[in-house]
Amino acid sequence: MSQTIEQIARALDAQAEGDLSITVTGAAEPAAAGPEQIALAMNEKYAEGLRAGGARAALLWEGADWRAYGLEAAIFVTRPRLAMAGLSKAFDPGIEIASGIHESCVVDPSAEIGAGASIGPFTVIGRGVRIGPNARIASQVTIAEETRIGADALIHSGVRIGARVVIGDRFICQPGAVIGADGFSFVTPETSGVEEIRSTLGQREEIREQHWVRIHSLGTVEIGDDVEIGANACIDRGTVRATTIGSGSKLDNQVQIGHNVQVGEDCLLCGQVGVAGSTKIGDRVVLAGQCGVSDNIIVGDDVIAAGGTDIYTNVPKGRTVWGSPAVKMETQLEINKSLRRLPRLFGQFAELRETVTKLKQKGSTE
Amino acid sequence: MSQTIEQIARALDAQAEGDLSITVTGAAEPAAAGPEQIALAMNEKYAEGLRAGGARAALLWEGADWRAYGLEAAIFVTRPRLAMAGLSKAFDPGIEIASGIHESCVVDPSAEIGAGASIGPFTVIGRGVRIGPNARIASQVTIAEETRIGADALIHSGVRIGARVVIGDRFICQPGAVIGADGFSFVTPETSGVEEIRSTLGQREEIREQHWVRIHSLGTVEIGDDVEIGANACIDRGTVRATTIGSGSKLDNQVQIGHNVQVGEDCLLCGQVGVAGSTKIGDRVVLAGQCGVSDNIIVGDDVIAAGGTDIYTNVPKGRTVWGSPAVKMETQLEINKSLRRLPRLFGQFAELRETVTKLKQKGSTE
Amino acid sequence: MSQTIEQIARALDAQAEGDLSITVTGAAEPAAAGPEQIALAMNEKYAEGLRAGGARAALLWEGADWRAYGLEAAIFVTRPRLAMAGLSKAFDPGIEIASGIHESCVVDPSAEIGAGASIGPFTVIGRGVRIGPNARIASQVTIAEETRIGADALIHSGVRIGARVVIGDRFICQPGAVIGADGFSFVTPETSGVEEIRSTLGQREEIREQHWVRIHSLGTVEIGDDVEIGANACIDRGTVRATTIGSGSKLDNQVQIGHNVQVGEDCLLCGQVGVAGSTKIGDRVVLAGQCGVSDNIIVGDDVIAAGGTDIYTNVPKGRTVWGSPAVKMETQLEINKSLRRLPRLFGQFAELRETVTKLKQKGSTE
Repeated sequence: MSQTIEQIARALDAQAEGDLSITVTGAAEPAAAGPEQIALAMNEKYAEGLRAGGARAALLWEGADWRAYGLEAAIFVTRPRLAMAGLSKAFDPGIEIASGIHESCVVDPSAEIGAGASIGPFTVIGRGVRIGPNARIASQVTIAEETRIGADALIHSGVRIGARVVIGDRFICQPGAVIGADGFSFVTPETSGVEEIRSTLGQREEIREQHWVRIHSLGTVEIGDDVEIGANACIDRGTVRATTIGSGSKLDNQVQIGHNVQVGEDCLLCGQVGVAGSTKIGDRVVLAGQCGVSDNIIVGDDVIAAGGTDIYTNVPKGRTVWGSPAVKMETQLEINKSLRRLPRLFGQFAELRETVTKLKQKGSTE
Repeated sequence: MSQTIEQIARALDAQAEGDLSITVTGAAEPAAAGPEQIALAMNEKYAEGLRAGGARAALLWEGADWRAYGLEAAIFVTRPRLAMAGLSKAFDPGIEIASGIHESCVVDPSAEIGAGASIGPFTVIGRGVRIGPNARIASQVTIAEETRIGADALIHSGVRIGARVVIGDRFICQPGAVIGADGFSFVTPETSGVEEIRSTLGQREEIREQHWVRIHSLGTVEIGDDVEIGANACIDRGTVRATTIGSGSKLDNQVQIGHNVQVGEDCLLCGQVGVAGSTKIGDRVVLAGQCGVSDNIIVGDDVIAAGGTDIYTNVPKGRTVWGSPAVKMETQLEINKSLRRLPRLFGQFAELRETVTKLKQKGSTE
Repeated sequence: MSQTIEQIARALDAQAEGDLSITVTGAAEPAAAGPEQIALAMNEKYAEGLRAGGARAALLWEGADWRAYGLEAAIFVTRPRLAMAGLSKAFDPGIEIASGIHESCVVDPSAEIGAGASIGPFTVIGRGVRIGPNARIASQVTIAEETRIGADALIHSGVRIGARVVIGDRFICQPGAVIGADGFSFVTPETSGVEEIRSTLGQREEIREQHWVRIHSLGTVEIGDDVEIGANACIDRGTVRATTIGSGSKLDNQVQIGHNVQVGEDCLLCGQVGVAGSTKIGDRVVLAGQCGVSDNIIVGDDVIAAGGTDIYTNVPKGRTVWGSPAVKMETQLEINKSLRRLPRLFGQFAELRETVTKLKQKGSTE
C-alpha cells in the first residue's frame, strides 16, 4: 500500500509542493505520524502537533508554510473531509478473505456466484442465489434462497440476508446486520386497544382480552446501488410489497427499518434510528442518532432531524426538525429556552396575580 | 402453494362470489397483481389500482361491485388485517431448511431432538438440550447446555440461546436474537454515585473512585408458548430467579430486556424498546417503538405507551401513556399544545406585567 | 460447585453463625430455596419468604434472628449487592466449552493462542492474531487479522472482532457484539445540508443534490483491562486514531459507540446507549439506558445521566443530568413539575389578563 506524495495528490486532485517522490505507507494524526506516514493536518489547529511529530509529508490547510514545520513535502486541501475520503480509500487495506470459496462453505449447487469472488469459512448460500462479480463475503454469512446481489459486494461476517432479497451493486454490509427478517405485524380478532386509542387519542371504552394473530411477511426487501448497512442493523421484509432502500443511502449501526418502509435515495440514517412500518422517507433525508419515526407517515425529501427527534406525523420536504414531538428546529430552540425559564415564570406569575388582586381590592375600596 | 378462491374463502371464513375454482399462487397489491395472484383491495381506496392491475380475483371491501372492476371472482372481508393474517399464512412459503440435521452441525450426543426436525448447517447444540417435535432451526444457531424448547419451534439463523433457558411451544425467533446473555449487574464496594443520587435525587456529597464488581447471573430465562422474538433482540438471564416472557407475547427487532424482568402475556413490545432490570410488565401491555422502562418498577396490565415514551415510575393498569416522563396520553397532548404556545406566553406575560406596573403607578399617583 | 457455609462466609469476608459445615450447591430466593441451596434474604422484607422456603442456611440482613426462621446456619451481610457479587461468582458454573480448540475451527497458522484455551466449534481466527492464556471462546466467533487479546478472555458465541483491534486482560464479551466495524463517516463533495444547518442552527439557503462519499476507517479499537461488552453492542473503529474504551468500563447490550469515541475508565453505559463519533466520555461516567450523546462533545468525569437523557453539548465533570436536552437533574425535576402545571397556567393567565383589562378600563373611565 505504499504511495508517493505525487500519487496521493493526483488521487485527491490537489496541489502539492516539495519532494513529491517521498513514499508513505499510511496516514496518522500529526503528533503520532512517523516518517513512513503522511500527517493529517488539514486545519491550523494541528500546527503544534505537526512540530511534535516525525512526518516528512503532510496534508495541510491552504496557505500553510510547510517548510516551517520541517516537512519535505505537502499536499494542500480545500475540503478536508473530502480529502480524507480519498486518502482513506487509498490506504484502506480492506478485510482479508482468501480468494475463492472456502472449502467449509455450504453453497447450494444452483447458486450462481460471479467471477472473482472471495468467500470466507462457514458461509451458507441458498438455492438459486445470484451474486455478481468480485464479491467479498466474509465468514459465517447466511444468504437465503433466491436472493440476488449485484457486483462488487462487501459483506462482513455474521450478516443474515433472507430469502428473495434484491440488492444492487457496490453493496457494503457491516457485521451482524439482518436483512429480510419477518415484519412485526399482528392483529387481534376483535378491535384491539391500540386501534381504539389511535382513533380516540387515548380514551378506551373497556379493556378486553387480546390475542395476537400473526400477519406473515410475503414481501421482500429491495436495496438499490451504493448502499451501506451498519453493524447489527435490521431491515424487515414487507407484508406484500417490498421494503425498499434507495440507491446511495447509508444506514448506521443498529438502525431498525420496519416492514413496508420506503427509504429514498442518498439518505443518512445514523446509529439506532428506528422507522416503524409502512412509513415513507424521501430522498436525501438525514436522521441523526436515535431518531424515531412512527408508522404510516411521510417524511419529505431533504428533511434533516437532529439526534433523538421523535417524528409522529408527516414532515414537509426541506424542513429541519428537532424534539419530541418533532417541530421546526428554530421552534424547538425557542421551546428549550422557554423551558429553562419556565419554573421562574410560575413564581413571577404568582407575584403578578398577587399585585393585581391588591390593585382590584384597592380599586373596589376607593 | 396454489389455492382456489374457494379454499381461500373457507380459510378466511369469508363470503365469496363468482368463479370460485380460479387458482392463484400468491397475493399482490391491486395495481401489481397478475392473473395468478389474488389482489388485496380491502378498502375502497384501492379501486383505481384494481382497474389498473391484471388480477382475476380479489379480496374486496364489503359491498364492492366486483364485476365493475373486471374481476371474475371476489372474497369479501369485514376485518381486513385479520384476513391478511389468514391469507399471508396460506401463501407464506416459509424458509428453506433441508429436513434432518445437516451433517456439519455439532450436536452433543446427550441432546434430545424431537421427530421431524430440520436443522441447517453449522448449528451447535449443547449437552442435555431438549427440543420438541417439528423444530425448524436454520444455520449457525447456538443452543447451549440444558436448554429446553417446546414443539414446532422456528429459529432463524444466527440466534444465540444460552444455557438452561426454558422455552414453550410454537416459538419463533428472528435472526441474530440473543436469549440468555448475562445480566448487566455491577456493584461498587462502597456506595456508588448512582446509589447516592437515587436517594438524593441529584445531590452528591463527594465524588470518589469506583470500581465495578460483577454480579454473575445464576438465573435463566423462561419463555411461554406462542412467543416471537425479533431480529437482534436481547433477553438477559436473571440474577437468581429467571427473566420471564409470558405466553403470547411478541417482541420486535432490537428489543432489550434486562435481567429479572417479567413480561406478562400477550404483550407487544415494538422495535428498540428497552426494559431495565427487575421491572414487571403486566399482561396485554403494548409499548410502541423506542419506549424505555426504568428498572424495578411495575407497568400494569393493559397499559399502552406511545412511541418514544420514557416510563420512570409505576403505571397503573389500563392507562395509556405518552411522553418523557410518561404521563396520561391526554395530559401529554395538553402539554404539547402548551409547549407550542409557550414562547409566545413569555412575551404576553411581559406585556401584562408592564400594564400592571403602569396601573400600579397610576394608582399610587392618584 | 458444592460449598460449605464456612467457605462462602470466608469468600464474602462475612460473619457466620450455626452449623458452618452445611453444604449447598446453589443459591435461590428464600421462598424457592431447598435444603441444597442457600437462601438470599439480605433484607427484612424476605422474612416471610424464609419461613415458606426449605433452606437450611441463608444470607441474612444484620441482626436477623436466624433460628426463628428454622435455619441451621446463617451468614450476615452489610452490603447485600456486594455479597451477591461474591456469592454469584462462587456459584456461576460458567459456559461449557470443551478444552482445546474444536477441530472445526479455522485458525490461521500464524495465530498465537495462549496456553489453556477452550475454543468452540466454527470459530475463525485470522492471520497474526495473538490471544493470551486461558481464553474461553465460544462457537462461531470471528477474530480478524492482527487482533490482540490479553489473558483470561471470555468471548461468547457469535462475537465479531475486526482487524488490528487491541484488547486487554479479563475481557468479557456477550453474544453477537461487533467490535471494529467501519465508522459511519461520509462526506459530500459540496457543503451538505447537515453542515449548513449546523452552522446556521436550522436555516438552509437552498436544497441541492447530495451524494455521499465514504471516509474509510483506517483506525482501530483499543480496549483496556477488565472491560465487559454486552450482547449485540457495537464499537466502531476510528478514522485514523483508535476508538478507545478505558479499563474497568462496562457496556451493556445494544450499546453503540461511534468512530473515534473515547470512553474513560470505570464507566457504566447501560442498555441501548448511543455515543456519536469523536465524543469523549470521562472516567466513572454512568449513562443509564437509552441515553444518547452527540458527536464531538465532551462528557466530564463522574457525570451521571438518567435514562433516556439526550446530551447535545459538553457536560462539566461531576454533574448529574436528565432530560432532552440534558440539564442538571434538579432543573429537570423543576421543569417536569412546571410542565404538568403548564396547561392550567394558560387558563390562569387568560383570566388574569381579563382582570387587568377590566382594571384598566375602570381606571380610564374614572
